[in-house]
Amino acid sequence: MLLSETAASIKSMEIRGAGRIARAAVEALADYAKNLDASDPETFKREMQRAADILTGTRPTAVSLPNAVRSVMRALDSFESVEAARDAVLARAAEFVDHSEHAVERIAAIGARHISDGDVLLTHCNSEAALGCILEAHRQGKEFEVYATEVRPRGQGLVTIRTLNDAGIRTNYIVDSAVRYFINDVDLVFVGADAIAVNGAVVNKIGTAQIAHAAHEARTNVIVAAETYKFAPRTILGELIEIEERDPDEVLPRAVAEELPFVQVRNPAFDVTPAEYVDLIVTEQGAIPPGLAYTVIRDCLGWKIEELR
Amino acid sequence: MLLSETAASIKSMEIRGAGRIARAAVEALADYAKNLDASDPETFKREMQRAADILTGTRPTAVSLPNAVRSVMRALDSFESVEAARDAVLARAAEFVDHSEHAVERIAAIGARHISDGDVLLTHCNSEAALGCILEAHRQGKEFEVYATEVRPRGQGLVTIRTLNDAGIRTNYIVDSAVRYFINDVDLVFVGADAIAVNGAVVNKIGTAQIAHAAHEARTNVIVAAETYKFAPRTILGELIEIEERDPDEVLPRAVAEELPFVQVRNPAFDVTPAEYVDLIVTEQGAIPPGLAYTVIRDCLGWKIEELR
Amino acid sequence: MLLSETAASIKSMEIRGAGRIARAAVEALADYAKNLDASDPETFKREMQRAADILTGTRPTAVSLPNAVRSVMRALDSFESVEAARDAVLARAAEFVDHSEHAVERIAAIGARHISDGDVLLTHCNSEAALGCILEAHRQGKEFEVYATEVRPRGQGLVTIRTLNDAGIRTNYIVDSAVRYFINDVDLVFVGADAIAVNGAVVNKIGTAQIAHAAHEARTNVIVAAETYKFAPRTILGELIEIEERDPDEVLPRAVAEELPFVQVRNPAFDVTPAEYVDLIVTEQGAIPPGLAYTVIRDCLGWKIEELR
Amino acid sequence: MLLSETAASIKSMEIRGAGRIARAAVEALADYAKNLDASDPETFKREMQRAADILTGTRPTAVSLPNAVRSVMRALDSFESVEAARDAVLARAAEFVDHSEHAVERIAAIGARHISDGDVLLTHCNSEAALGCILEAHRQGKEFEVYATEVRPRGQGLVTIRTLNDAGIRTNYIVDSAVRYFINDVDLVFVGADAIAVNGAVVNKIGTAQIAHAAHEARTNVIVAAETYKFAPRTILGELIEIEERDPDEVLPRAVAEELPFVQVRNPAFDVTPAEYVDLIVTEQGAIPPGLAYTVIRDCLGWKIEELR
Amino acid sequence: MLLSETAASIKSMEIRGAGRIARAAVEALADYAKNLDASDPETFKREMQRAADILTGTRPTAVSLPNAVRSVMRALDSFESVEAARDAVLARAAEFVDHSEHAVERIAAIGARHISDGDVLLTHCNSEAALGCILEAHRQGKEFEVYATEVRPRGQGLVTIRTLNDAGIRTNYIVDSAVRYFINDVDLVFVGADAIAVNGAVVNKIGTAQIAHAAHEARTNVIVAAETYKFAPRTILGELIEIEERDPDEVLPRAVAEELPFVQVRNPAFDVTPAEYVDLIVTEQGAIPPGLAYTVIRDCLGWKIEELR
Amino acid sequence: MLLSETAASIKSMEIRGAGRIARAAVEALADYAKNLDASDPETFKREMQRAADILTGTRPTAVSLPNAVRSVMRALDSFESVEAARDAVLARAAEFVDHSEHAVERIAAIGARHISDGDVLLTHCNSEAALGCILEAHRQGKEFEVYATEVRPRGQGLVTIRTLNDAGIRTNYIVDSAVRYFINDVDLVFVGADAIAVNGAVVNKIGTAQIAHAAHEARTNVIVAAETYKFAPRTILGELIEIEERDPDEVLPRAVAEELPFVQVRNPAFDVTPAEYVDLIVTEQGAIPPGLAYTVIRDCLGWKIEELR
Repeated sequence: MLLSETAASIKSMEIRGAGRIARAAVEALADYAKNLDASDPETFKREMQRAADILTGTRPTAVSLPNAVRSVMRALDSFESVEAARDAVLARAAEFVDHSEHAVERIAAIGARHISDGDVLLTHCNSEAALGCILEAHRQGKEFEVYATEVRPRGQGLVTIRTLNDAGIRTNYIVDSAVRYFINDVDLVFVGADAIAVNGAVVNKIGTAQIAHAAHEARTNVIVAAETYKFAPRTILGELIEIEERDPDEVLPRAVAEELPFVQVRNPAFDVTPAEYVDLIVTEQGAIPPGLAYTVIRDCLGWKIEELR
Repeated sequence: MLLSETAASIKSMEIRGAGRIARAAVEALADYAKNLDASDPETFKREMQRAADILTGTRPTAVSLPNAVRSVMRALDSFESVEAARDAVLARAAEFVDHSEHAVERIAAIGARHISDGDVLLTHCNSEAALGCILEAHRQGKEFEVYATEVRPRGQGLVTIRTLNDAGIRTNYIVDSAVRYFINDVDLVFVGADAIAVNGAVVNKIGTAQIAHAAHEARTNVIVAAETYKFAPRTILGELIEIEERDPDEVLPRAVAEELPFVQVRNPAFDVTPAEYVDLIVTEQGAIPPGLAYTVIRDCLGWKIEELR
Repeated sequence: MLLSETAASIKSMEIRGAGRIARAAVEALADYAKNLDASDPETFKREMQRAADILTGTRPTAVSLPNAVRSVMRALDSFESVEAARDAVLARAAEFVDHSEHAVERIAAIGARHISDGDVLLTHCNSEAALGCILEAHRQGKEFEVYATEVRPRGQGLVTIRTLNDAGIRTNYIVDSAVRYFINDVDLVFVGADAIAVNGAVVNKIGTAQIAHAAHEARTNVIVAAETYKFAPRTILGELIEIEERDPDEVLPRAVAEELPFVQVRNPAFDVTPAEYVDLIVTEQGAIPPGLAYTVIRDCLGWKIEELR
Repeated sequence: MLLSETAASIKSMEIRGAGRIARAAVEALADYAKNLDASDPETFKREMQRAADILTGTRPTAVSLPNAVRSVMRALDSFESVEAARDAVLARAAEFVDHSEHAVERIAAIGARHISDGDVLLTHCNSEAALGCILEAHRQGKEFEVYATEVRPRGQGLVTIRTLNDAGIRTNYIVDSAVRYFINDVDLVFVGADAIAVNGAVVNKIGTAQIAHAAHEARTNVIVAAETYKFAPRTILGELIEIEERDPDEVLPRAVAEELPFVQVRNPAFDVTPAEYVDLIVTEQGAIPPGLAYTVIRDCLGWKIEELR
Repeated sequence: MLLSETAASIKSMEIRGAGRIARAAVEALADYAKNLDASDPETFKREMQRAADILTGTRPTAVSLPNAVRSVMRALDSFESVEAARDAVLARAAEFVDHSEHAVERIAAIGARHISDGDVLLTHCNSEAALGCILEAHRQGKEFEVYATEVRPRGQGLVTIRTLNDAGIRTNYIVDSAVRYFINDVDLVFVGADAIAVNGAVVNKIGTAQIAHAAHEARTNVIVAAETYKFAPRTILGELIEIEERDPDEVLPRAVAEELPFVQVRNPAFDVTPAEYVDLIVTEQGAIPPGLAYTVIRDCLGWKIEELR
Repeated sequence: MLLSETAASIKSMEIRGAGRIARAAVEALADYAKNLDASDPETFKREMQRAADILTGTRPTAVSLPNAVRSVMRALDSFESVEAARDAVLARAAEFVDHSEHAVERIAAIGARHISDGDVLLTHCNSEAALGCILEAHRQGKEFEVYATEVRPRGQGLVTIRTLNDAGIRTNYIVDSAVRYFINDVDLVFVGADAIAVNGAVVNKIGTAQIAHAAHEARTNVIVAAETYKFAPRTILGELIEIEERDPDEVLPRAVAEELPFVQVRNPAFDVTPAEYVDLIVTEQGAIPPGLAYTVIRDCLGWKIEELR
């Protein structure tokens, strides 16, 4: 796929999901590098940067995108020849894709250690990483039970309970409003993340914050499972993570809405869970408390404050 | 309608809603008294008691039923002749019905005083008393805005937004999970109640407790609008208010459920909001803090501990 | 003083302070009753009611006024002759004045029991009742120390420290902002009240809520000293206690304010401390938790819900 | 037993326990009344009052004593002849003793309703009333498990686990420090009370407050089981409940203490649990929230503020 | 200005403000280095160290002083000749001054991103960095409103509202006690800092802690704007940040104080806001949560634990 | 002592205490290296690794053991000859032992700075590091008072009060249940740690969590004194710190237990204090907030995520 095609597919949301977006962008960059005919290193770098900018411009709020692109482009910080630069880009791209593909399984291995026999878990939405932890614990023969929410308005809970059912895990299915009713019986909450801000706040599917709040009230730990590329570097610069409001139609059929002129549907897709309601974030680099997001951005993702400006 | 018919209609839930059940039972008792042919006062009282027991036995968990029946039967605590007793029963019954019919409008008048120009309100489910307060404030010309939740699984929020829309009140419609996202912009939460326990805990539609918890976190007051016959006298004796679990089908279509043998739907209809998250309960007897439920049961409803045993 | 003169003096705030207003109104009513020439009981009652309405209309937000007036007018609930009615009014008025004059000393006796040798107290503003408790404990020979705040913008703290100094009580004088800095060394907070709502919320001098909040954070008890006529009966009907905003000039001299067109001074005289930050309210009828304000209004002040409508 | 003998036995703590003290005092008063030779009602009353004062003077901090004595003496509020007065005293005394003897079983019946199959309970110290609830639930065939603490320094936990063991109830025995470790698995805490103050604060065996605090943190309800005569009337007057410090020897053998001149043993027998950490107080008059202690003192125990002064 | 003159001016507080002190010290060191005649590198270093010690000794509690001095002195960790050392010192000094002068504008750029149209802000005291954020957002055309406190006893709020007024920003001016009254309408609190401890605690103008506490209660975020040289390195060693108590005269005129022998004025200039009430600290190095103060001290300021001993 | 002997002594708990175990293991490794006859570097490294594995296998839950062993083994990351490797191992071993032996005194120096004249401290169990801080402050002439708990079931408090008494420090000795009773008079809590997890949770003697919780409720700071080798690296991988349950006999004599078939003793030796109840952890590397455990493990202890897998 040409770079322009990949860019278009990300823009149109044909390519979706933090991991898939990241890998597609990286592969597009690698492909572009492979075919880039440049007379000298400076030209090579300049052209690559142009390509990188096109990719990061496709979805400004997708946090994995700049993290992925930058991970590859770092190869061009210093180099001697066009060929060396090309090789470095290709090597980094391959490493990123490999790393990304294994990230979830590393997270699963770490997260599963927190699950014990007899536990009652709760999960919300349909996070590959969070479910990874639960499925891995099940594979290890641990016996436990899961509560899964419905997740209005898109109903991702249905996908989740199918997965859990197929694995043979005892699952309770509840409406989103029923979390506080059952949380006193829950030992551990496992959720994913769409983005994590520098203050450790976790942006995730609408409803997550209420669940974490109810868990905190009942002294139930909350574990967020997230690849490090979910950490949002520009929040260091004070940039707010934009919360997308989706189509009203998801909540109220257009036909009904039209009969109700005084009613407006508000449909935010995500909410923000403050760091104080999160016990641990399990990443492929290990489990860390949410307060260390700054360290992840600087040390694991390798951003420098100057680059972000 | 004969007493046996009324009893059957309450049992089958043809007659529903705390107020309607209470009034139907009272009217059935009055009717029964009118036609009761008794030779002496003792016989009259005994027969009336039998009738009362039939009515209260129809739905043991409907909290308005014993309150209503007892309110009438108290007429028989002392009397001199069959006729005097009959008259007393009829008078009390008429008074109860009248009082009950005006209760909501009295609540509305009191609750509306808490609403000010520019306020943002939030309501959950479709409570006649809570909506009464909001509509009354609107009638008084106050300008405000309302957030209304969807209320899964039965979707009573749709009824609520129709009512608000018809009154011309600016309304925002959100999924149940989105309450914490918006609560910082809300000034006041108004909800109804199905029952109120002696410790001031409010039993109401599933999700209410999460809303009240989120409101408390944001220093937003929560007002419960409820007729006094919602206060559950037998909680003084330690009796727990039973939380009904409704048909799984409401949450997950049977056809889907059958494909998922490891999944069980849990569908509690109500939850319990602790008194510490409720600022005031507005009743037709005035606004009181939740901690005074015992006083309402004893002084407003007139129960004596001996009667409850 | 004629009734019209008393009314005028209350309106112009010549007569100030909850106790003084209450006693002046009661004495004006007694005086009016003494001289009222009425042909029959009904006329007497009607004229008295007219007088009562004039008085309560002078300062609609002064909570002691309706409490005092009603305490006297209750004499006219039932009577047989003009003379009997007049006597009853005079007797009740005399009783009210006597009771009111002794209320603070009774509060002092109760409140002082909470102070122990070695205690560190904190007080805000210049409450006769709160200072009464402190001075009484000092008279009993208890050794303790007091923190007193400055109380911007009116500086009532200066009056307070003069009183404490004259009594020979070791006192620390601090700005309002310094309360949280010292509160960990404080054992007990004593403040007064301007009004108490049915949910136990205490309306008192601006700054009280911050102090009570800081005290709660440090597990320091807060005692409110208040005569029962500070309890606001109409809050049972949902009526909000109006918070007076006073002259901007108190905060920013007019000359300076005029140079600053984009600046508006907000000068609320009171704030509202929620019941959960108050340990006890010491009244002349005994110490009660704030949650029982409803009981005080109904049982001590004798209001019936019907009268309030 | 003569009145003077009873008084001596209470003073020397030969007669101990709130219930036993109360009944002994009442029986002594009845006995005294039976044999009192008085020429006229006034003399009878005066002599009885003298006897009552002797009894209440024996242990000024035993809260059941004044409650019991006053319950009998109220018979002398109005009467016509010596014989009528004597009869009234005897009748009230008999009623009190009967009531007191049945109080625990009434509490047990109410408290047991809060226990459900599968529950995990926790109890501290060795409260007859709290254990009554647990044993009654067991008698009703409910299946549950209990955690019982050791209760340093006197080790009353050993008595408790013997009782539970003999009843065949599955019991876990833990040191006092381990409560927070296990509390997340506990559904309900049941403790007794030595006294309850007007603000709902519960005075009970040292350690109770830490347990209630840990329970609150984990959203675990705390139920206090206590006869109404544990409510301390004079706390309405601001009187503090004195916390007894017991013999250091209970904590550190005297021989060891003597080697350690810089070490002082502090051995308070009780601590004070604030009302906000208590869900319900189960009394023989029904279950009430702690905020209503004032109502119990005034309405159930019948104290008037004037009598207390 | 000679080094000794600069030292004297810092000591006498002629030179004030963390930034100005820091830059003056650095310039004095540069000046001293420029003119220092040393035969060999070791002598040069020894003399420079003597000069550095003089400067840091002038105000032991000014946290920017050691940070600034050390930033320059680090140039002498390794070097080869007197000239190289001198050049390194001069280069570092110039860099520090430049960095310091741009720090506030970098902070403003980051902080302004947190302000949105329609926001209500609150600020306390007169912090250049906090005001910088507000003014920058205004320059960007954002529409918002500000609450500013009076800031007793020195009244810095007056300076603040003049600045805001001159910029044409709608401002509300309130007494320090009124913060909790208005905080529910506030979206974001912006304050500066005098020093930040290793545990993230923020030392700032007296009253800041109360504001942050009230903000936390109402789920309002608190942002601290502070240059990195406000982070106090020696708190890593357990050194406490000394809170200066200023002249009593600022609070109570001496003449009045003299009449009040039992009254002592306590006038702490700062208080300590715990990390849990601070959402973010915006520095010129980016926004970080308060829990990372240790990382700032070690990584941004470059202190090694050994140097601090 | 031979490596096998050291291993056996650690296994049998003859060698106990985090510091002693760490130093014994390091010395055993050094000894083994000194005598290891290897033909080439690879063999040397392989043999050393075998020895290291034997040592870390002796007590899998002793957190100082892998930290110590790894600290030495890091010498073998790169080297050129057997002799160079041997020397490096010996140098690192010597450095570790020296560092470890001075760690407590460095901690004491830092911790003591937090203690001021007039303070009241509280300590639990018998931590060398926590007592070190207290004793150092006393040596510096500071005047303060200490509360020490009994520490059931092993009674380590007795050892603590002997130490404090011998130093001439005024000490109060209390049962574990009495902490909340006295905590309002305490200024600072000092405890040790057995292990610290990546989320900052502190594993320490059973009862510590209740104390920290009570301290937090009363705004009393909690300082944990712990050498860096107490930080548990494998918690980064999600590994839970195992809480040892010790012999029931410690709590209930076997003879009594045998009479009580329905009673089971639960005797966990440690509990887990969440990071939010800990103000600072004082290590020999400086004071840090608990949220930075990850940084300690990575930067001070030098673990890489890859090594831990």
